[in-house]
Amino acid sequence: MRLFLTSLAVLITLIMPAEVRSAENSERSAVSSYFLENGLQLVVIPDRRAPVVTHMIWYKAGSVEDPPGKSGIAHFLEHLMFKGTVKHEEGAFSNSVAEIGGEENAFTTADYTGYYQKIAPSALGKMMAFEADRMRNLVLSDAVVLPELEVILEERSQRVSSNPNAILSETAQAALFVHHPYGTPVIGWEHEIRSLTREDAISFYDKWYRPSNAVVIVAGDVEPDEVLELARATYGLIKAESEPLSRRTVIEPEPTVARSVSYSDPRVTTPSWRRSYLVPSYQKASPGEAEALDLLGGVLGGASTSRFHRKLVLESQISSSAGAYYQGAARDMTYFVVYGSPRGENDLGAVEQAIDAQIKTLLEEGVTEEELVRARQNILKSIIYAQDSQVTLARIYGSVLAMGGTISDVRDWTEKLNAVTVEDVDRVARKYLVMPRSVTSYLRPKG
Amino acid sequence: MRLFLTSLAVLITLIMPAEVRSAENSERSAVSSYFLENGLQLVVIPDRRAPVVTHMIWYKAGSVEDPPGKSGIAHFLEHLMFKGTVKHEEGAFSNSVAEIGGEENAFTTADYTGYYQKIAPSALGKMMAFEADRMRNLVLSDAVVLPELEVILEERSQRVSSNPNAILSETAQAALFVHHPYGTPVIGWEHEIRSLTREDAISFYDKWYRPSNAVVIVAGDVEPDEVLELARATYGLIKAESEPLSRRTVIEPEPTVARSVSYSDPRVTTPSWRRSYLVPSYQKASPGEAEALDLLGGVLGGASTSRFHRKLVLESQISSSAGAYYQGAARDMTYFVVYGSPRGENDLGAVEQAIDAQIKTLLEEGVTEEELVRARQNILKSIIYAQDSQVTLARIYGSVLAMGGTISDVRDWTEKLNAVTVEDVDRVARKYLVMPRSVTSYLRPKG
Repeated sequence: MRLFLTSLAVLITLIMPAEVRSAENSERSAVSSYFLENGLQLVVIPDRRAPVVTHMIWYKAGSVEDPPGKSGIAHFLEHLMFKGTVKHEEGAFSNSVAEIGGEENAFTTADYTGYYQKIAPSALGKMMAFEADRMRNLVLSDAVVLPELEVILEERSQRVSSNPNAILSETAQAALFVHHPYGTPVIGWEHEIRSLTREDAISFYDKWYRPSNAVVIVAGDVEPDEVLELARATYGLIKAESEPLSRRTVIEPEPTVARSVSYSDPRVTTPSWRRSYLVPSYQKASPGEAEALDLLGGVLGGASTSRFHRKLVLESQISSSAGAYYQGAARDMTYFVVYGSPRGENDLGAVEQAIDAQIKTLLEEGVTEEELVRARQNILKSIIYAQDSQVTLARIYGSVLAMGGTISDVRDWTEKLNAVTVEDVDRVARKYLVMPRSVTSYLRPKG
Repeated sequence: MRLFLTSLAVLITLIMPAEVRSAENSERSAVSSYFLENGLQLVVIPDRRAPVVTHMIWYKAGSVEDPPGKSGIAHFLEHLMFKGTVKHEEGAFSNSVAEIGGEENAFTTADYTGYYQKIAPSALGKMMAFEADRMRNLVLSDAVVLPELEVILEERSQRVSSNPNAILSETAQAALFVHHPYGTPVIGWEHEIRSLTREDAISFYDKWYRPSNAVVIVAGDVEPDEVLELARATYGLIKAESEPLSRRTVIEPEPTVARSVSYSDPRVTTPSWRRSYLVPSYQKASPGEAEALDLLGGVLGGASTSRFHRKLVLESQISSSAGAYYQGAARDMTYFVVYGSPRGENDLGAVEQAIDAQIKTLLEEGVTEEELVRARQNILKSIIYAQDSQVTLARIYGSVLAMGGTISDVRDWTEKLNAVTVEDVDRVARKYLVMPRSVTSYLRPKG
């Protein structure tokens, strides 16, 4: 039941399975996609390195779909999905996973909610039956719902209230997205979590947890035909909903004014500085822009050979750390981040000045071919490393599909990265790294 | 068709008719309130200084009720209310007002939408008939709706895009209200205005323009009984709606992080500095807090004898102007503002430092009895001056009632101001004038 927005999203923009690139060459390793009659999408990714399979279901509804005043309901429902159903008592599903030595987890982001089990291939049918069951048969009584609210409040307290960086980030995110629901925390505002009810959970569940709004990913040592049969016998039995889904489409206005947020807290040990620029995501960008932003992140701050690390950490030694990255994974707009922490006697102003100077130079002089090649190699390397994890492999497909993308988006990504030129990178830098698009965060120790 | 949020709201917190204070002493000048069977509230305020009457209708729905993604619809509908109805062609109502030498206007704020005519008493029945007619019989065809969108876009362009201060304020407001719809501009975000449709207007109109959601104020040389008869014969004929209204209740989270917004523009001639603190409105405050905040505004910056003016403008001459005020009129949370512009060689940093120093002194040493008395006298004076305008008199009652207040809120206001002590003012200052509650705005010339 981990809630993560940043970590996975960054990961997704950095990795893609090499397996896929060979899809055209080998029938056995091709990714297969099917749609059941009730609208559920099934994607099978062969991965025969070990006798394990990862079974994931992704609902295309995250905190963005929280009704106004009901923030946190998507994440709350994720917790409630581990309660009992008409058929199975609370704990039956999780116990079944544990008995066979499997792993399970779940996550809610702004754009989607996902659940998965990593198990032996022989247990796949059973997992699908459990997962299909809780898509529609969850029992949400007050006795089940109300105590879980306390768990969520405790989770918020641990994740946000006890964490100065999270306190600051929450306001920074709200200042970056002045209108889009990405400005609302996935876990919800505390006072709204307190007011969530059983009825709110049921209403979210009834609306979004339906076959036509779900993607099932199965990665592992399996035969696509057999997986399809299992899916038909489990998910396939769920009736399609008659009325169509209406998704909120809130568009963030073009930003015009630079913003900043400042927070000091006695619990802060290392001051830190960070600036986020509003930029389009992979799903929203014009062709080539997202890939160019990814590479720009690499040039400025992706590795120890990047500009920020070389100039701020190694040469001037103003910073103990400094970097940049593009948060490419989102259904709507997203952000490009530059950050740094001061070293020794330097303060946040010195870090800001040094990073501003680096950005100014970049906008004036552009990037070099050598830098671009190096940034690209680093991303391609991450892609290869990412294959090591079957769960990661499944997550990449699941998240892209859950955000409205396609299998080709994953398949063609390397090719699109290879097509980016120095001019492309310079163009997105000049277009997006401008102050009116930005929120700058200052985190300082207090006292 | 003016759209104003700040001017009226500030006015309301500064004025109250002396007429009302004598209500208990004179039957003739008492404010009367009635509810028609369909739920419409009628308030009659005798004002016999001249043979004129002000007729206003207030709908308890402003931009806060714009559905997500449909910002600007409340204000758009205000424009559309001047189109034709089933009974009357476009222009018939306005022409009728003009023919008798009357005045009319309308306004949309975050909390309400209002319409009024100032006319001869003999025309009151006719105005009521027109106004009752357009509460339910508006004809909204595409031919009527679509051209008006261009008018609204032009209005937005003139009010915001051509006005650096408004550009900055829009983002400052969004940064102050990170969650509540007060963070969305009343006129709407440009891209959302563009997408508004006839169906959006009809749906807002059908939901909110109903007798039980309206307050009619009649101020002037009239007899309450006669006004009630006229209201029954016009508004009284409208059928009550069967299903109850559901109002969004979004609560702004307690702020934790100081924010700032900066904007430079070649059109700026005078740099300016401003800080808003999130505070409760008259409607939301604990007893006495709103009145204390109003008086705090007076002590810090309400007049030429206030601290900011004396210290920054007269003594140190750092500022060409400096002030403070409490924006008390709102249904939900609101803000307390301090502001200043630099003089001569001084920059915004100097103004900020000087105002911060004044606030620090105030929080440490408190206000004096003499300052409190002077601030109170200034407010009471404004109250007396405000009586000069019949329209203002009507507006005070209308806006308070439209925001969920009562006639007693208006009636008892002077008394509550008189009850505020030095300790009350010190307490609200220490509670609310703290950085985590604030958004600081920097407006600078460019180039």
